[in-house]
Parts: sequence; C-alpha cells; structure tokens
Amino acid sequence: MPSDILTVEQLDEKALLERIFPRLGPTTALIGPGDDAAVIAAPDGRTVISIDTLVQDADFRLLWPSGYRTGGYTVGWKCAAQNLSDINAMGAVPTSLVVSLTLPGSTEVAWVEDLASGLAGAVTSLMFDTGRCSVVGGDLGRGSQIVVTAAVTGDLEGRAPVLRSGARPGDVLAFTGALGAAAGGLAVLESSLDYSTVREEPDQLLATLVASQNRPHPPIHLGPRAAAAGATAMLDVSDGLVRDAGRIALASGVGIDLDAEYVRTRAELLAPAAARLGADPLDWVLGGGEDHGLLATFPPGAVLPKGFVRMGIVQDGGGVTVGGVAPQTTGWDHFAG
Amino acid sequence: MPSDILTVEQLDEKALLERIFPRLGPTTALIGPGDDAAVIAAPDGRTVISIDTLVQDADFRLLWPSGYRTGGYTVGWKCAAQNLSDINAMGAVPTSLVVSLTLPGSTEVAWVEDLASGLAGAVTSLMFDTGRCSVVGGDLGRGSQIVVTAAVTGDLEGRAPVLRSGARPGDVLAFTGALGAAAGGLAVLESSLDYSTVREEPDQLLATLVASQNRPHPPIHLGPRAAAAGATAMLDVSDGLVRDAGRIALASGVGIDLDAEYVRTRAELLAPAAARLGADPLDWVLGGGEDHGLLATFPPGAVLPKGFVRMGIVQDGGGVTVGGVAPQTTGWDHFAG
Repeated sequence: MPSDILTVEQLDEKALLERIFPRLGPTTALIGPGDDAAVIAAPDGRTVISIDTLVQDADFRLLWPSGYRTGGYTVGWKCAAQNLSDINAMGAVPTSLVVSLTLPGSTEVAWVEDLASGLAGAVTSLMFDTGRCSVVGGDLGRGSQIVVTAAVTGDLEGRAPVLRSGARPGDVLAFTGALGAAAGGLAVLESSLDYSTVREEPDQLLATLVASQNRPHPPIHLGPRAAAAGATAMLDVSDGLVRDAGRIALASGVGIDLDAEYVRTRAELLAPAAARLGADPLDWVLGGGEDHGLLATFPPGAVLPKGFVRMGIVQDGGGVTVGGVAPQTTGWDHFAG
Repeated sequence: MPSDILTVEQLDEKALLERIFPRLGPTTALIGPGDDAAVIAAPDGRTVISIDTLVQDADFRLLWPSGYRTGGYTVGWKCAAQNLSDINAMGAVPTSLVVSLTLPGSTEVAWVEDLASGLAGAVTSLMFDTGRCSVVGGDLGRGSQIVVTAAVTGDLEGRAPVLRSGARPGDVLAFTGALGAAAGGLAVLESSLDYSTVREEPDQLLATLVASQNRPHPPIHLGPRAAAAGATAMLDVSDGLVRDAGRIALASGVGIDLDAEYVRTRAELLAPAAARLGADPLDWVLGGGEDHGLLATFPPGAVLPKGFVRMGIVQDGGGVTVGGVAPQTTGWDHFAG
C-alpha cells in the first residue's frame, strides 16, 4: 500500500473519533457522544430497541468478483438502513443509533470517514431529515475484519407495537417497498460480469439492482402509518418473502397465501436482469432478502396506507403458499450449510 | 477437531437461537426476543444508551500464552459487565441489553451456550437479580473471528445524568471498585507462567487477578447512589485511572490531583503479584483498565455513599497529578501504536 494512504493504525482513538464525529451531523440526543453513554428522549415511556451487524466477507465484500469495490459510504448506509427498518417494522419512529466499529489496522481512514457519512446519509435520507434520529454514541476497536454493529432505538408515539403474532384469518396481506432487487444486485456483484461495463445500456437495470443491494431504501415512514391504520401484524422482509411471511404465519398460527399474479408481476420486472445472469427472477422475489420492504396484515376492509398494495390473504391453517401452491424457495439463513 | 464436537456451522440460525434463549433467563422486556425489535419500559421518559464490543485476539484470547483457555461464560460476563458499567457511570439503572454475536463456523455450540449463560450470569449477579434488566434481543452472524457487541440501556429514575463535565475546583475526588487488578490479571495471562500452577499457593493472588480480568465486578448499584448523593462528575475507569481522570479534567476544565498515599496503598496490595511477574504495580494502578470501578467528584462536604473512598481533589488548572507530580503512565488506547 502506498505510504501516502492514511490507515487507522496511524491514528490514535481520539484522532480517529475527531474525523468521524463531524460526519455524523448534529446530534438529536439530550446528551450526545462523549460521555460513558448517551441520553435520548423516550416520550412514550417505552423504548423499542434492536441490534444488527454487517460483517466483511459475510454481508459485504470490499472487492466483489465483478470488480465492484464497496465504499465505506455503502456499508454505513446499509447498516443504518437495516437497523432503522427493524424499528419501522414495529410501527415505531427511529430515535437513535449507537454504532460499534471493529476495524483492521490497515483500514483506510477515508473509508471510515465515508462510513460515518453513509450512516448519517441514510438516516437523513430515509427519515426525510426529521431531526428525530442520529448516531448518538459508539465504540471503536481492532479486529481482523471489518464488523459494523448498530443498535437502534425507536419511539411508539403512544401506539401499541405491531408484532408478528397478530394476523387473523381473513386479514389482508399487503406489502410496500422493493422486492427481489437487492437479491438481483447481489447476483450481479457475485457474477463474472465486469461491473465497470454494466453501468451502461443495455445493462443499466443491473446497476440499479446493485444500488438496491448496496443502499436499500426501506420505507421508514410507512411503519408508523401502517400501525395507525390498524395493521395486525408486520415485519420487514430481510430474509426473503416466503421465509418472512412464514414467520408471521408461525407466530400468528395462521396460513398465508400470496397472490400468484402479484408475485409473477414483480418477477417480470426483474426478468431482463435475471436472464442476463441465467437466474430465475422468481427466486429473487420469493427468496431474496435485504430489500427491507414492509409486509403487513390488516383487518378486512381496512383502508391500506398509501404505498401498501394488497398481495395476499391470511387464512386458517399454517405455512405459506403462492396461489395455493407451496413455493420452492425458502430464503436466507446465516448458518444453514 | 473430533467429529463429536458440535459447531455452529452444523446448526441453522433457529436451532442455535433455541439453545441460546433458555440460558438468557426470563425477559424483563415488555416485548422480548422474537420480533423485529424488543420493547422496554422507559418510565423516566429518557433512555440512557451505550454500546461496547469484545473482539477475539484484541480484547481476549481463546488460548493465552500462559495456557489459560477463555470460556464462553467469561466472554459473556465481561461483555455484560462492561456495558452495565457504562450505564452505572451515568448514574442510571441498566434496563436491557441487546447482543450481536459474530461467530466463526467452527465455534463450539457449547462455548456459545456458555456465553449466553455468562451474559445472564453477570446481569443477575451484578444487579442482585433485581428483575429490571435482561438480554432482550440480538443478532447472529458469521465471521472469521468472534466479535461480541452489546448495546445497553438504562433508566435515570428522574435524576439528571452525571456527566464528565461537572467537576468544580474544591470538589472531592472519590473512587469505588477494583483498581489495577484486571491489569494484573492480563499480565498473568500474557506471561510465560504456566497458568495450571498459579491457582495454588503461593501464587493464588495471581489467580485472583485473572478472575478480575475475566469477570470484572463493577459496582453497578453505586452509580445511582453517587448520583443521588450529588456527584458532580463520574465515569467508569475502563482505560486506566490517570487517563480516565484526565477525561474528567478535560471535560470539566479543571485539574485533578490524586492522593499519593492512596495510590501507593493500592499498589502495595498488588506488589507481591507484580514482583512475581517483574512488573511495577504502580503501572497497574495508574494505567490499568478494565476494572470498571467508579471515579466520581462530589461537592466539598458531601457525604460519600458507602463504598466510595476519598482519593484526591479537584483543583484549578488542568491535567492529572499524583501528589502534585505528573505521573509517567497514561493508559490504554485501542489504536495508538
């Protein structure tokens, strides 16, 4: 590595933090970074909390087979987005992130700075700069690979949290957000295509899919709206539509039938890209994760919040079917071989 | 590795979680693990939050030069203890932990089970089983080394948080907890001593120090008591007495003088162990971290909570001295070479 590239092992912790903090933007906490802990407002009297991690070479690669290099901004964005999505899926509004960075000493400081910018960029973009949420604290340490963990809090604004267990037979199943795009992007990144060429026509759709994989746009404002509209169950689709629908089915003790026409239409949107890669777009739609769209059930006759589309029904029984037929795809498991 | 040892790559995520959950004990959350996020009570209307990580080969070794093998219980305990301590240092009562585990596929399942038991064991032991705090959620993923991150929340019970910035000249500096013991334990683990022999007399003190390094006992109940007694500044000593006292000095714009006799007395307790290792016990007392004792300042004339001992004064100026003299030791930095 050229000697003019600044790496984290050349800086002490204080110097590195001084490069990170300005990129996080103004704190929204009552007491922000700099003490043993931060203090955030919890006006509801309850706090929603979750934690999620991105690991180098498991959740992202710095250099993909396609030649694509993952910048720090992308990893920061993705980490924030998937954490905010977990709060969204409870029907709550995100209020803070605390972030722990484990970094090899050889990590470029500029990459870490970009990661901080990506964290802040996702919060600002996905929450429309409401000034309610920011990175309020963190931790830095050394390791052999990059690990980025964020814990996220949220406020329920007086509403009940929307769990996975409240779906009832007869409820409407509805969805909002991207579906299969992130999985398509992953397939592009892992393919033998030369990424430097896929940004141009006729392959521009492939680049769009890569953007979905790298910088997901979960519909953060729609979780609270679904809760207010009476959603009986909700989760974010992070491990694949069939698998995550199955979680609602299991927790609620119901069956879920996905509308075959809806699934087919979503797959058709991805078909040109899938054909280019020799993949089946149905696999992406039914089994792909990481888009972080919202899957929710509503009582029959409920007015769906704008953005949600009816795409199935809740019925007696158990498990997930597509047009009454068991699907072939299950989705993502971190450990299954 | 013998084929009868169960490793995490042989289980899917669900099966591994089913082995972890029972070891975490009953949840204290309003909504516990199993949904996209947990929901905890925040009766104060504010939530204190922090995050802290343990990385294999940086913060602990599975096999130390001394031959000591670190069990999962120890890593779980240590992770919980140092996180609870950050909440304690704000004068708040811990209310929840969320934990992210990054594990190589070859990690023994029994080791992970022990880690879960250690997390729960530390919370129960250090908080005297108050039923206020538990592990309420988490995340599992694969990586090349073990990384354990916990985020912790706390409740201020209506009090103001105790920051690092409130010390005023004339305040009394007081401390409670272990000091230098964890550093001594680290020195034992990293030494060429054969750990299998140091558990016996005359080296039993060495084993005690190892226990301090592995299973620190921060005085979790004393942070809120110090706050109630009017502490003007507080932090937990995680990076060394001089370094952490310097943080209060810097944040408060004051100088701090540590009582030389107090420091000498604390060092004398460690002297036999230090002599065995050819170390200076003053380095452990002034520069050693990870004991997670509480360093706090109180207004002159304040009645110190039981457990706190006066060991210095806050004065005009800046920086940290010991009996008026600048110390040689600074403490721990994660990145400084």
